[in-house]
Amino acid sequence: MKVPSELLSFIRGERKFFISTHINPEGDALGSSLALAIALESLGKETILYRDGIPKFYNFLPGIERFTHSKPSLATSHWSLILLDCNTLERAGIEELCFKCSAVIDHHETEKAFGDIKWADPNAAATGVLIFYLIKELGIKITKDIAINLYAAIAIDTGTFRYGNTTSEVLRIASELIEMGANPLSISTSLYETWSRERFALLISALDTFEIINDIAIIVVTQDMYKKTKAFPEDTESFPNVPKVIKDIKVSALFRELDKNYWKVSLRSRTDINVATIALRFDGGGHKNAAGYTIKAELESAKESLLKELSIPSSI
Amino acid sequence: MKVPSELLSFIRGERKFFISTHINPEGDALGSSLALAIALESLGKETILYRDGIPKFYNFLPGIERFTHSKPSLATSHWSLILLDCNTLERAGIEELCFKCSAVIDHHETEKAFGDIKWADPNAAATGVLIFYLIKELGIKITKDIAINLYAAIAIDTGTFRYGNTTSEVLRIASELIEMGANPLSISTSLYETWSRERFALLISALDTFEIINDIAIIVVTQDMYKKTKAFPEDTESFPNVPKVIKDIKVSALFRELDKNYWKVSLRSRTDINVATIALRFDGGGHKNAAGYTIKAELESAKESLLKELSIPSSI
Repeated sequence: MKVPSELLSFIRGERKFFISTHINPEGDALGSSLALAIALESLGKETILYRDGIPKFYNFLPGIERFTHSKPSLATSHWSLILLDCNTLERAGIEELCFKCSAVIDHHETEKAFGDIKWADPNAAATGVLIFYLIKELGIKITKDIAINLYAAIAIDTGTFRYGNTTSEVLRIASELIEMGANPLSISTSLYETWSRERFALLISALDTFEIINDIAIIVVTQDMYKKTKAFPEDTESFPNVPKVIKDIKVSALFRELDKNYWKVSLRSRTDINVATIALRFDGGGHKNAAGYTIKAELESAKESLLKELSIPSSI
Repeated sequence: MKVPSELLSFIRGERKFFISTHINPEGDALGSSLALAIALESLGKETILYRDGIPKFYNFLPGIERFTHSKPSLATSHWSLILLDCNTLERAGIEELCFKCSAVIDHHETEKAFGDIKWADPNAAATGVLIFYLIKELGIKITKDIAINLYAAIAIDTGTFRYGNTTSEVLRIASELIEMGANPLSISTSLYETWSRERFALLISALDTFEIINDIAIIVVTQDMYKKTKAFPEDTESFPNVPKVIKDIKVSALFRELDKNYWKVSLRSRTDINVATIALRFDGGGHKNAAGYTIKAELESAKESLLKELSIPSSI
């Protein structure tokens, strides 16, 4: 994977970096941002890491306390932006800020016009893979803290090496990160075995709504369930994957109630069904096998509209 | 990892190999056996693969049809035995057979006296890792079929690279196996996403019994649930692991009804609690973090007896 030379020049030439990532950040967004910030600081650069709404279970990522959660009061026009794992200011919720120069490092398919410098590689399994190559190309030593952040980033986006984006290269990088100090058991335990009791109770409530219609698995999380279980919306992360263990379903959908008659729909599919296309029809987005959208409707008609769209063949 | 020279001489010198593995075989036992058989045949050797009771979901392993499921009627005294992933004839259920010579290739800790040639390395994550090195040392090309079998073997025994035995070396081997044709998504899907709808319905029923007492998570599967969901006892495999996602539980226990007032109890723990010791007190057995026993009692008193034993400190 070749790091664009203009990105290397940009990083070598600038001194002050404002690093941000998308709203509702997950492991790849956070781990990549942290790894890059730690690496740049080792070069003597100044960094501001900005992201609010970080789920608590990412507290194990080394340096997570570096994140500023409120928008900076300082003028950012002397800072250079590096936007990770997304490609517009809006996705990071910082559209009102001005920067000296901006770079986008992303692995999502939907390329956008934003960014003076862009490195968007949809073939990369995770933004963490791009940051791995960037750090190496800059000649920076991969410390234990960088290794843990990058391993977690790559682990999250590959389902810990189970998804289709798990390549020979991904495992070779992960192998190298272990040599640099990443501990697979400790990271996996932190990623997958740190549920609160409330979260588990919420999963049980959600599974009690489980149904399969036309080979589409559907589960629902309501506001009422949050109240009963004392769990939170961010606890639903990974819920749409749960019914994917069933061999003959085509799509797994989670309907999460945002407000009365207002739903966030998360879709997961296997290789042959492109749910990003489906999500786009509802003005949402995402990846081929993991996408989402919001919809204002009563639950039953929201379900029906999804089932209708899924019955229309989508381009792969 | 160094392959013993006497094992290499033995394989180079002999012509007829009887390959077997333990009763209730899992992915490492089966994948290792198949990979070795395919490799030896490419050297012009004759092989017999013997193992009964192979779960259907391993049908995706290339060459699985090579297994003989009934004990061979031929005299085996002219054949050389290679015993994989176990270390006694009894564990393979072939104690009445005689062989010309025998080799044991295993990664379990409990070394036994059996075997003219022994390669037992408890530091290996899987028997598949040993077979990988053996095949390479013999100068045999790793074909796609061999790669898939070895990848599946290693994946199963490392929780697909999540357990503590996942080392830098393990990921480097897995990376090489992908280059040789193993497909991580396809193998993971075959291993983890082939549940029947009935099995998923059974899990939901079981989770509706979920409770936590003294930091012990308990779920129950009754005969009545099998009837209602049309699922089977073997569908409960992996159920005891499900509540392990909760961060602050000490042990996860599944009570599975074998008959009226007769329960099979499966225990799972994290690193610091030895459930094998607990299971032993009920005349059961297992590993430190995964053990089980049966008990004749009413459900509530069966639960109480477990909670009582778990409140007594166990040696680690």
